[in-house]
Amino acid sequence: MGNIWGTRLKAAIFGESHGAAIGVTLSGLPPGFEIDMDAVRREMARRAPGGSPLATARGESDDVEILSGLFEGKTAGTPLCAVIRNRDARPGDYGRYVVRPGHADLPVYRKYGGYADYRGGGHSSGRLTAPLVFAGAVAKQMLRGVSIGARIYRLGGISDADAEPERVVEASALEFPVVDADAARRMKDAILKAKAGRDSVGGVIECAALGVPAGWGDPFFNSIESAVSGMMFSIPAVKGIEFGDGFALADMTGLAANDQMRAEDGVIHFMSNHNGGINGGISNGQPLVFRVAVRPTPTVGAEQSTVDLSKMETVTASFGGRHDPCVVPRAVPVVEAGLALCLLDFFLGGWKK
Amino acid sequence: MGNIWGTRLKAAIFGESHGAAIGVTLSGLPPGFEIDMDAVRREMARRAPGGSPLATARGESDDVEILSGLFEGKTAGTPLCAVIRNRDARPGDYGRYVVRPGHADLPVYRKYGGYADYRGGGHSSGRLTAPLVFAGAVAKQMLRGVSIGARIYRLGGISDADAEPERVVEASALEFPVVDADAARRMKDAILKAKAGRDSVGGVIECAALGVPAGWGDPFFNSIESAVSGMMFSIPAVKGIEFGDGFALADMTGLAANDQMRAEDGVIHFMSNHNGGINGGISNGQPLVFRVAVRPTPTVGAEQSTVDLSKMETVTASFGGRHDPCVVPRAVPVVEAGLALCLLDFFLGGWKK
Amino acid sequence: MGNIWGTRLKAAIFGESHGAAIGVTLSGLPPGFEIDMDAVRREMARRAPGGSPLATARGESDDVEILSGLFEGKTAGTPLCAVIRNRDARPGDYGRYVVRPGHADLPVYRKYGGYADYRGGGHSSGRLTAPLVFAGAVAKQMLRGVSIGARIYRLGGISDADAEPERVVEASALEFPVVDADAARRMKDAILKAKAGRDSVGGVIECAALGVPAGWGDPFFNSIESAVSGMMFSIPAVKGIEFGDGFALADMTGLAANDQMRAEDGVIHFMSNHNGGINGGISNGQPLVFRVAVRPTPTVGAEQSTVDLSKMETVTASFGGRHDPCVVPRAVPVVEAGLALCLLDFFLGGWKK
Amino acid sequence: MGNIWGTRLKAAIFGESHGAAIGVTLSGLPPGFEIDMDAVRREMARRAPGGSPLATARGESDDVEILSGLFEGKTAGTPLCAVIRNRDARPGDYGRYVVRPGHADLPVYRKYGGYADYRGGGHSSGRLTAPLVFAGAVAKQMLRGVSIGARIYRLGGISDADAEPERVVEASALEFPVVDADAARRMKDAILKAKAGRDSVGGVIECAALGVPAGWGDPFFNSIESAVSGMMFSIPAVKGIEFGDGFALADMTGLAANDQMRAEDGVIHFMSNHNGGINGGISNGQPLVFRVAVRPTPTVGAEQSTVDLSKMETVTASFGGRHDPCVVPRAVPVVEAGLALCLLDFFLGGWKK
Repeated sequence: MGNIWGTRLKAAIFGESHGAAIGVTLSGLPPGFEIDMDAVRREMARRAPGGSPLATARGESDDVEILSGLFEGKTAGTPLCAVIRNRDARPGDYGRYVVRPGHADLPVYRKYGGYADYRGGGHSSGRLTAPLVFAGAVAKQMLRGVSIGARIYRLGGISDADAEPERVVEASALEFPVVDADAARRMKDAILKAKAGRDSVGGVIECAALGVPAGWGDPFFNSIESAVSGMMFSIPAVKGIEFGDGFALADMTGLAANDQMRAEDGVIHFMSNHNGGINGGISNGQPLVFRVAVRPTPTVGAEQSTVDLSKMETVTASFGGRHDPCVVPRAVPVVEAGLALCLLDFFLGGWKK
Repeated sequence: MGNIWGTRLKAAIFGESHGAAIGVTLSGLPPGFEIDMDAVRREMARRAPGGSPLATARGESDDVEILSGLFEGKTAGTPLCAVIRNRDARPGDYGRYVVRPGHADLPVYRKYGGYADYRGGGHSSGRLTAPLVFAGAVAKQMLRGVSIGARIYRLGGISDADAEPERVVEASALEFPVVDADAARRMKDAILKAKAGRDSVGGVIECAALGVPAGWGDPFFNSIESAVSGMMFSIPAVKGIEFGDGFALADMTGLAANDQMRAEDGVIHFMSNHNGGINGGISNGQPLVFRVAVRPTPTVGAEQSTVDLSKMETVTASFGGRHDPCVVPRAVPVVEAGLALCLLDFFLGGWKK
Repeated sequence: MGNIWGTRLKAAIFGESHGAAIGVTLSGLPPGFEIDMDAVRREMARRAPGGSPLATARGESDDVEILSGLFEGKTAGTPLCAVIRNRDARPGDYGRYVVRPGHADLPVYRKYGGYADYRGGGHSSGRLTAPLVFAGAVAKQMLRGVSIGARIYRLGGISDADAEPERVVEASALEFPVVDADAARRMKDAILKAKAGRDSVGGVIECAALGVPAGWGDPFFNSIESAVSGMMFSIPAVKGIEFGDGFALADMTGLAANDQMRAEDGVIHFMSNHNGGINGGISNGQPLVFRVAVRPTPTVGAEQSTVDLSKMETVTASFGGRHDPCVVPRAVPVVEAGLALCLLDFFLGGWKK
Repeated sequence: MGNIWGTRLKAAIFGESHGAAIGVTLSGLPPGFEIDMDAVRREMARRAPGGSPLATARGESDDVEILSGLFEGKTAGTPLCAVIRNRDARPGDYGRYVVRPGHADLPVYRKYGGYADYRGGGHSSGRLTAPLVFAGAVAKQMLRGVSIGARIYRLGGISDADAEPERVVEASALEFPVVDADAARRMKDAILKAKAGRDSVGGVIECAALGVPAGWGDPFFNSIESAVSGMMFSIPAVKGIEFGDGFALADMTGLAANDQMRAEDGVIHFMSNHNGGINGGISNGQPLVFRVAVRPTPTVGAEQSTVDLSKMETVTASFGGRHDPCVVPRAVPVVEAGLALCLLDFFLGGWKK
């Protein structure tokens, strides 16, 4: 039952990549909030393949139909169900028993005894991030005073320039969200090169939130890091996360890792942000900053050794289908959406609102 | 309400560092399981300071009193509550308003409006990991066929040797769990040097689980990575986590990152384990492998700039107290315990047991 | 967030009476179960108005579209989302500010600040029981060895004959589920008379489950009675519930109220079933028996005093719309469905399966 | 896992009747609330046997030790754990295999495979209501503006006089909470007579809450009736519940059952309260009123037929032990406590606070 998320705000997702539809039911949304559907569509478009040569050829417009919970353009306070029909499904592209390396095919087969929809990863497909982006787009709008943005921090071995959180949030508005234009160009080349070579590349996404007040998050199991990491690892292909300086903190001394403070006119100023705006799992008033590692798309054109489960035999197979040579750009709005959901849940649920 | 964890197995922790006691109530434990209390005590001792010059001088024996749920030495199937009294509390060591940089002091003050117990971090203290180790010790015993172990992968900038998961699990039995004896010696020196310099050091812990069958974990919000990361970020000082090759995967190509397979006598063999035994959030039958980054202890003897909240003035303060110059060694059994809890929850809850 | 139910089996409902659609997402269903869709449709038809003069004139066929979680006719193990379009909505029948006595109109208006869909009760409508019946129909099929049935125990002041649980389950198959044919006739007359008088009548439904083994249910907050009552009070118009002899037990002595036992050939036989098959919240192996009180439909044609919220003035109003003169017959399959969901949750979740 | 309750406010109970201790961990309590421990003790004393000839001879003072979450007399915002030691346990009074009719002995044995503590009902004992009363006492204090009270509505076949909710709340302060002094006398006689005859009696408790604003409760699974009934059926011996006129509503017509309204100076007045202050699961601003049926104590001195599970043989046994000839008086504060917890959860969690 990994499909239901949240404590006060809840999201229940459903759907398979090549089934009838995918969607989400959101509950706990406060009533009376006017949803800007154009802004929602813009977020959906950021994730949708959109005909870019950098992305899959699957042509899904990801139109959202809202079945409930919205009345006269405003949230009703009741469960909001949004459905996205699968329009360009090609279930025939997929074989049932020859499991694709790097994908969930084998574990899913084992878990569900072979009854799960195997076509294009079924329920485990990255396509299920579309309802997340919808939900996150709504959450973003509701988080007044909080700005969320993400950028490609690294892709195919190429790093973007260092950037302050404010700059990261700004960059998220770019069509290809990278601070350094030259790095952006080289990253795109890396994607096209991987595509040409029937291979794929991965990367790292950096996400920031500005305007989060001190006091959000709970100690221990609902720390900001626990909640956000739990959400991020729900995004297919994410294999690592670090907050603030993250793994680099492990090599620092305590004195260097601490963010010292001073008071000025009744306001606390931090002299650094090594801890990504979070101490003891709770926001300290600084910008939240974290990075997630995205593995390269497992579907590659090269021949691989794998197993045909129907015969339990080794086979060599090449997997075509329509796939992204790199999911990092399309994952950027998903990461933002995931953070928005977590923050709205904290906003709605904490002592400190 | 970050104190309650789990889906089928649940743990509800409580306590403050310098209050009367800390503890945990476990529910969902299957009945009729004989708990080896000696093994539990050994795990508790691994985390307890124990008079080592590498650790805090606080002398807590961490004796566990079981108040319920254990009948005639076996689990009763009913909630098991375990309490650990705080015996060597020295609440006077802590000031109320001068917040310690790097600690949760400021966010906790903001969150709870100054009503939370501030002494030694109160509820946010690393001391709360003692009940987690107790719970994990019970979980470990119940996970028949699964072996869990962790080692110090890096400490104070010094790396341990690379090691297979089997070797990691073995190393966890060492008093100072490091594979390479020379690296171990240098790490200890780094801790003592940091202590002498009134500073602290951090590190990285690598954890592995052998014997996890394919099919544990759920897609999306209850993926193994989601569950384990949520648990790990509940451990104070953890700031990053990566599964399998983690952040290094971001720089690999899809073909290199995939774990190819072959079948042999009806058994599937993987030719690598770049993904840490998990695909699409579900175990694939390989060893689970992940690493967590542990920041250096924030309490350091050097003078730091911070704020006195009672006057909202900048002050320069040095924080004494009894603290660990490096929490990494004591965090090793905590990481193992956290994984054991997650895996038992999956074992008890999934289709695939 | 009252729209998500369950512990191991979860149901997330959504929808408004005169919105686009209503539906449910079920998660935690075991994979590989072939759903008999004809049986599902039969259950849906039992609840649907169906043109009976005893029911509302609203013509909803309640066709279910399954969007996910069903693959090749069998449960996939992934979330199963079912949607029912509202086809015969007549939102114009309802006024916004003149709240209907006995309905949720006033509390909903207060709760959601006037933003909830008010038309026909919106999300609070009895129409939302259609997805519950769908979910229950699936659950019933999965509960092999357990038979669930309900009958009208009392309606408009007329009582059905006493009946053993087996007889109750049998009667549930009747078009008008009453044991005593004469009582059935008089009950129907009572409904038609109420309809003619522009009034409505209520009643009591008795529900039984055969084949539940001893050991289902948990002590305290997830007792069978807690779970079942929580579900039953989710059904609009239910205002009371009693298990076994229920309120009559309050007047008995302990000796009379106890169900004594004897052993025969290794099997325990009870000499009575005053406690409805449940002791201490856990099933004892006897048939489960409970009754729910259903208040008369609040929508009546007679003039009533109420308030126009837009002006905060007293008004006298008569509420037409299309409504049931008695919801008891249509509530029978809803009660059964609710019990089926609770029992499947226990079956999937308990030690004792 | 029936031991954890709540959505925003959570209670995790533990303990066995003749084990070391019983207790509860409350999480989600707002910080900074000064708990009146004298008021808590008064509530505990209402439930404690206290040497009355009407109650068990077990001498438990039910002293509460608070282990965490209370700092300088005020709630800290962190988990509050309260422990009550069992001081007058007499485990030797109970046999292991001869199950007591009317008790949970048999189902518990089946559920936990014989591993649960059988002594005095173990975890399923009414003794576990002591932590509930503690929790409820705290909740009552936090519910400013809301008054909760209950009285014995019926006992041993003797009814108390009808009374308005205000009168019910007043009566709850009485040592024997009955409105009509003559009825009180006869009820006490009924208890003493049952005790003399080695039998027991049951009854009905009526509970009311004044001051609950309109808008608490959620549609469907978290309706006020769902939440309150789920809590009430957690109290051992409760077998029925009805809200407002409850089962009597089933015999009324819609017009008679509706609570009509009028507006006066901007305030809505109801002309009756047949629905117990709740419509569609949500409070309407009127007093909440409900009644619970309490079965007679199952432990009676008379000989009963039952089964010795060790031999699967029928035996005739008489069960001594120390028990209450009637638990109704002691259950009154438990019912109030349960309602207080439910209402505080709604207060903390709803849109409408």
